[in-house]
Amino acid sequence: MQLSGVFSVLPTPFSSTGEVDIDSLRRVIDLFLGAGINGVTALGVTGEVARLNERERAMVLEAVLGQVNGRVPVIAGTTADGLKTCLDYTRKARAAGAAAVMVSPPRMAKLNSDAVVAHFAALASAVDTEIVVQDYPPLSGFTMEASLLARIAREVPPARTIKLEDPPTPLKTSRILEQCGRTNISILGGLGGVYLFEELLAGAHGVMTGFAYPEMLVEVTRLFSAGQVDRAAESFYRYVPLMRFEFQEGIGMAIRKEVLRRRGALACADIRPPGARLDLSTRTALDRLLNWMRTNQGIPWISV
Amino acid sequence: MQLSGVFSVLPTPFSSTGEVDIDSLRRVIDLFLGAGINGVTALGVTGEVARLNERERAMVLEAVLGQVNGRVPVIAGTTADGLKTCLDYTRKARAAGAAAVMVSPPRMAKLNSDAVVAHFAALASAVDTEIVVQDYPPLSGFTMEASLLARIAREVPPARTIKLEDPPTPLKTSRILEQCGRTNISILGGLGGVYLFEELLAGAHGVMTGFAYPEMLVEVTRLFSAGQVDRAAESFYRYVPLMRFEFQEGIGMAIRKEVLRRRGALACADIRPPGARLDLSTRTALDRLLNWMRTNQGIPWISV
Amino acid sequence: MQLSGVFSVLPTPFSSTGEVDIDSLRRVIDLFLGAGINGVTALGVTGEVARLNERERAMVLEAVLGQVNGRVPVIAGTTADGLKTCLDYTRKARAAGAAAVMVSPPRMAKLNSDAVVAHFAALASAVDTEIVVQDYPPLSGFTMEASLLARIAREVPPARTIKLEDPPTPLKTSRILEQCGRTNISILGGLGGVYLFEELLAGAHGVMTGFAYPEMLVEVTRLFSAGQVDRAAESFYRYVPLMRFEFQEGIGMAIRKEVLRRRGALACADIRPPGARLDLSTRTALDRLLNWMRTNQGIPWISV
Amino acid sequence: MQLSGVFSVLPTPFSSTGEVDIDSLRRVIDLFLGAGINGVTALGVTGEVARLNERERAMVLEAVLGQVNGRVPVIAGTTADGLKTCLDYTRKARAAGAAAVMVSPPRMAKLNSDAVVAHFAALASAVDTEIVVQDYPPLSGFTMEASLLARIAREVPPARTIKLEDPPTPLKTSRILEQCGRTNISILGGLGGVYLFEELLAGAHGVMTGFAYPEMLVEVTRLFSAGQVDRAAESFYRYVPLMRFEFQEGIGMAIRKEVLRRRGALACADIRPPGARLDLSTRTALDRLLNWMRTNQGIPWISV
Repeated sequence: MQLSGVFSVLPTPFSSTGEVDIDSLRRVIDLFLGAGINGVTALGVTGEVARLNERERAMVLEAVLGQVNGRVPVIAGTTADGLKTCLDYTRKARAAGAAAVMVSPPRMAKLNSDAVVAHFAALASAVDTEIVVQDYPPLSGFTMEASLLARIAREVPPARTIKLEDPPTPLKTSRILEQCGRTNISILGGLGGVYLFEELLAGAHGVMTGFAYPEMLVEVTRLFSAGQVDRAAESFYRYVPLMRFEFQEGIGMAIRKEVLRRRGALACADIRPPGARLDLSTRTALDRLLNWMRTNQGIPWISV
Repeated sequence: MQLSGVFSVLPTPFSSTGEVDIDSLRRVIDLFLGAGINGVTALGVTGEVARLNERERAMVLEAVLGQVNGRVPVIAGTTADGLKTCLDYTRKARAAGAAAVMVSPPRMAKLNSDAVVAHFAALASAVDTEIVVQDYPPLSGFTMEASLLARIAREVPPARTIKLEDPPTPLKTSRILEQCGRTNISILGGLGGVYLFEELLAGAHGVMTGFAYPEMLVEVTRLFSAGQVDRAAESFYRYVPLMRFEFQEGIGMAIRKEVLRRRGALACADIRPPGARLDLSTRTALDRLLNWMRTNQGIPWISV
Repeated sequence: MQLSGVFSVLPTPFSSTGEVDIDSLRRVIDLFLGAGINGVTALGVTGEVARLNERERAMVLEAVLGQVNGRVPVIAGTTADGLKTCLDYTRKARAAGAAAVMVSPPRMAKLNSDAVVAHFAALASAVDTEIVVQDYPPLSGFTMEASLLARIAREVPPARTIKLEDPPTPLKTSRILEQCGRTNISILGGLGGVYLFEELLAGAHGVMTGFAYPEMLVEVTRLFSAGQVDRAAESFYRYVPLMRFEFQEGIGMAIRKEVLRRRGALACADIRPPGARLDLSTRTALDRLLNWMRTNQGIPWISV
Repeated sequence: MQLSGVFSVLPTPFSSTGEVDIDSLRRVIDLFLGAGINGVTALGVTGEVARLNERERAMVLEAVLGQVNGRVPVIAGTTADGLKTCLDYTRKARAAGAAAVMVSPPRMAKLNSDAVVAHFAALASAVDTEIVVQDYPPLSGFTMEASLLARIAREVPPARTIKLEDPPTPLKTSRILEQCGRTNISILGGLGGVYLFEELLAGAHGVMTGFAYPEMLVEVTRLFSAGQVDRAAESFYRYVPLMRFEFQEGIGMAIRKEVLRRRGALACADIRPPGARLDLSTRTALDRLLNWMRTNQGIPWISV
């Protein structure tokens, strides 16, 4: 399986009392599938997976698989600090029907390249599954250089898709492709789509992110794949002010959920504490930006 | 409750097939209680809690409470990235019989002091429990200055015990005591006991760590409390080469379990992957050090 | 002195043999002053100050002051790990004619809030100068919370201008203003201008950054100050794809210099090793973006 | 040149008015040479090099070379963020008579292994000098894995001495030696000597650190080299409580200078702000420890 195209990382909606809200989750999935995406990812950072317990993890994954119902592949985040837990999560995800799993290196003091390779190798030998290698250094505290990602691709064949979120991502995309030589890999950008067009230009195969308007990612990616590079760029430059705004460190998740609430998908935009809540100034800026996109940019399907 | 004295952070023993080994855990508890400690802490970093699943967490805590059987207070680690999970863990720990919980600030990008105080305040208002504030910056990625720890103590009365592991700990002990003024707090050192005597001199009330010979911590702490400061120092200086050796970043946990295996408590010294295994050179150095302590230092109860 | 408006952080141009190129520096200054900026900052991160020796520092500052020749205020970066060096740099900068200095907290293991306040207080009491507090955590390794920046503003009156580069900057702008209460401060955004409009909405007084088209920053800031908020937003959203592209971690400096080379200001776009060089894929993406801005967006003064 | 034995990293003494105190520096050198060390290192972290200006750097190096006067080799720290500055420092150090230079990877966002190798290779090709590779991650913010250190040794022959300060150092020593195969390298421990014996057991060739009683390092190292491993261990275990105490993050430099003041070498123990000053509690603990070593351990040459 070579992943390509647009994969939406799903949020986990919560009710105003803090419980997982499956109905809203279902609406998000339908909204995203309606946008023409190629797959969804459950239980990622955007899904606030670090703030879910095991019962909630299982419940979310089951709901996602049920609602998607085979229309697109479902990737399940199964990152864990311990290999054993990662294996357990992965087995359960595969048994439930996930097409692949997404795994970041384990967080550990004094982690090193050999241990990272060993982790992916152990996972691949224990469970029959495709693995998306998540390259997001803040998650693990460990930076995987292009040469290490290429080494993983060579030594662990099921781990040949990379969710690349270590900037500068266009440059790193080039470097990884160079290092991989004839080993076929698939690179999916992330970072909220903020460098999507440049990543595609550098050879990326798509994007996997939680941006709340995947329509925009789909449009850019499709135009690019169809060889309409200028039109892809034009679309991208028009949309990127919103991607940039949504992708603010420390408050991005709150913005994302608020946009999905306005789009009618979420009943409640709350994120779980201690996540930061939307402040007035950010809300005001969001209002302006969405209004401008709807009115001045003539994108009528923007929900203000 | 003001905690003072020696609290042993318990390892989680695993069998050679990687399963939690409750029998070994029971032996460790009896060994430690026999050493005269004042309490135990389950589900801490030394317990490899990040590599346990929820069922294992519950099983470990239940076994610890059962084996301790009221002889000393049991503290349960309930740190979680999300407040809700922290509350759940805490409620379960208290319901099971834990005397208090130990909580580190949640790990989160852009965490700040107000959010940390809010986290402890929310915990204290939701569950009736004493809270040990774990000050170990690598765990949360956030450094709590002395003034913040004092603020927590003032604003959240149940959170007036600090497990202090942010070096230099003797200096920080002085600063916290200064900042706390008349607010009574209890400071317990950590860091494998490597600065125990100096922490006591600076005003600490004890130590909470996973050092595999708590007898030594007990001896030093008791002598100090009894006003026999010179004898406490003499004991400490004699023992500290071992504490220092055991407390090596990245390999310390493997050393600790090997010592407990030699002491007859653990059936198997394995730690869960990706944790580093004991290499030959470290093992050789450990052999020498234990031999020297037993033979040349005349400590016959050292297990070589 | 309350700084407001647009301050351009100057690059340090190098010849192809790696020497400081004063002629190019003069052209950059004239280009930027022609764009209507309100001041320039020499010897900042964008000036690759960490890769200059003391003679070069002095030479650059002298050239900047000479070329600016009083037309706008010149701010000089005088950050140093040691207070004494910071004082020396500051005295020399003031003697040479700098209007103010820009200072980040010193880089030091175990730095704390009190030491940061003491550093700024010692600087203010030793040298009669306005101080721009640079809040860019990667530089010092230390995060200053909004409350600390407000404390510095209260306790060290000359240090009431903040160059804010700790995201999310719009939210942090609000928080700092709240914490400062009646203490007048001036907040200048940074981060390549990527959140300029949102920072202004949140109450920022301008921007200090090295973006290679300060015309755009000037236009947005002037429109905003004139109360034409909608027009400011419109301009900003149109320009932000370029700001975003230029501001790529790890390669941004190379992009910035390349743009200034194309604008005719720099004879050579080299940055000093070990700084990353512009790769082909980034160059191609830049070509496209500048072309699009010139042609499709009708910004004829863009140099492709 | 293969470095082995004990190299003392020199402090930079300051007068009570904060100026470099050359007389004290000379006394430290004579004290250390009298202790039988094999070389000295000027302008390292212990020399507070980050807080010296260029004139002071030159003055210190000149004084060190003059006072040593060829009795042992002098290593000069020439680390810099920019390659050009590193080359300049290195050329000057060599011209002044330094036997070798000590260089840490440059500090830079998004540094990677190739850039690190390129940095050392450029240095080696530009200046004819031996290079001590300083492996102290907090300095550069970059961790060099054992395989990278071995690669540097293979590709840059003058860079085959490593000052190893990335714990666990005994384990890393083993790994580097393994990775280096037949390439001859020399590994010198650091970290205040706290793991000296274990490093030697693992194959290290000596130690380079600023510990204020190098006599102890010399004794341990000589005994070990002479094959008297048990006696080396015995000495080490007796001395390590002091090494451990001195090597406290954030306050260690202040302790070290205070010890050298008591030894009669320094006229004043001040370190330059913002470095932390010795607090009362640390001073009291130091008094006790030195007293105990002198009296109870029968080490009469300890200065209390």
